Amino acid sequence: MLTKNQSKRILRLNKKKFRTQEQMFVTEGIKVTQEFLDAGYELVEVFSTDLGYAQYSHAFVHISENELSSISTLKTPNKVLSIFRIPLPKPLDDSNLILALDDLNNPGNLGTIIRLCDWFGIRDLVCSPATVDCYNPKVVQSAMGSHTRVNITYSALEPLLSSSSNAMGTFMQGDSIYATSLPNSGVLVLGNEANGISENLNSFLDTKLTIPKFGPFKKTESLNVANAASIILSEWRRQSIEK
Amino acid sequence: MLTKNQSKRILRLNKKKFRTQEQMFVTEGIKVTQEFLDAGYELVEVFSTDLGYAQYSHAFVHISENELSSISTLKTPNKVLSIFRIPLPKPLDDSNLILALDDLNNPGNLGTIIRLCDWFGIRDLVCSPATVDCYNPKVVQSAMGSHTRVNITYSALEPLLSSSSNAMGTFMQGDSIYATSLPNSGVLVLGNEANGISENLNSFLDTKLTIPKFGPFKKTESLNVANAASIILSEWRRQSIEK
Repeated sequence: MLTKNQSKRILRLNKKKFRTQEQMFVTEGIKVTQEFLDAGYELVEVFSTDLGYAQYSHAFVHISENELSSISTLKTPNKVLSIFRIPLPKPLDDSNLILALDDLNNPGNLGTIIRLCDWFGIRDLVCSPATVDCYNPKVVQSAMGSHTRVNITYSALEPLLSSSSNAMGTFMQGDSIYATSLPNSGVLVLGNEANGISENLNSFLDTKLTIPKFGPFKKTESLNVANAASIILSEWRRQSIEK
Repeated sequence: MLTKNQSKRILRLNKKKFRTQEQMFVTEGIKVTQEFLDAGYELVEVFSTDLGYAQYSHAFVHISENELSSISTLKTPNKVLSIFRIPLPKPLDDSNLILALDDLNNPGNLGTIIRLCDWFGIRDLVCSPATVDCYNPKVVQSAMGSHTRVNITYSALEPLLSSSSNAMGTFMQGDSIYATSLPNSGVLVLGNEANGISENLNSFLDTKLTIPKFGPFKKTESLNVANAASIILSEWRRQSIEK
């Protein structure tokens, strides 16, 4: 049975303030939870309609479907909700390409980009401090476990870019990604959904990249940032095969 | 002032059944509405808090902010809601690559894919009959006017694929898109979000394509279909530049 106090503690973790304070986050559903369990994340508490989860923690609470619904952020809760400890980020590996996000707002976009990093083997994702929190429940659910394979760090982007010899950013005008040799290492910055890359980062960038438009109209105003990420990471990996 | 009857007529158009019956759809906001006006779509009625829209139609209704909110599907309605006539699709142009969608469910994905077609100069998008309706309000809003530059047809995919000499589909296993010469014309099928491409289409496909995974883990289960579309269309255009 779920106590009022447990319920309150879980729901508080939907807010960044409390996640930061407690250094904990919530996962939901069998698949996503299993990814974090398999990756050895420290399980703090597990709440489930399924007794099988008792094996993972002494802090197991058997709950009803209704209780699960009352603590879930999902439309159709799926058997389990867990609280994990937020891990410390690892040092960056600058021998690989680092992806950096400048003030991304949308949790779905961040989740999708974490998944794309996982797909394309980007180890390090650096988020500007104003970027949506990667342990936001929507981000965790949309990344579908890819958090466990991508090292996510929140820090100011200026020092990262100024220390890199290959600092690249995406713009509406710039060098075509197809005609530019994309380096194996360096930093690639993607900007905010509405405003792009902050002006104060411009002077730190060595290369301005763009995804060309095609066809007779060329009137599409912009690409969704997650689509832009998928296109550039794909092109980067394609070039690395050819090298 | 908005009459009860007008309000009822507008809200009914949120349902596919009534859009099909009336052959009309709704656009919202200044930008999206302007795209359809500029493209010469037949305006049936326009409801706005701004008298400036009176120039576009005799069927102009001046409404209050509250009235706009009552008929809008947006969290923050933006000055105007219009009803346009659904245009007849044009015949397909098989000299260009045709994108086909097999039972796509998610309106946001379809909207994003229409935008991607616009970006990459895909003229024809063919949707299987069970694909979400492209005049669904969420699709219209997320495509941001790209409907006006992409010819969207709903029809069974079997005849389209069987008559094409380059019928391609995306799968978890197949030929790498980077190592395959992607033809200038033909049909590229993307599958449903959960189930991929229907089994009954398999025998019509000449090529099974895949987007390779990279990095040490290769555990990401799948890519979002809109990301997959963006990656493959980008690679197709890149190859066309090189030819």
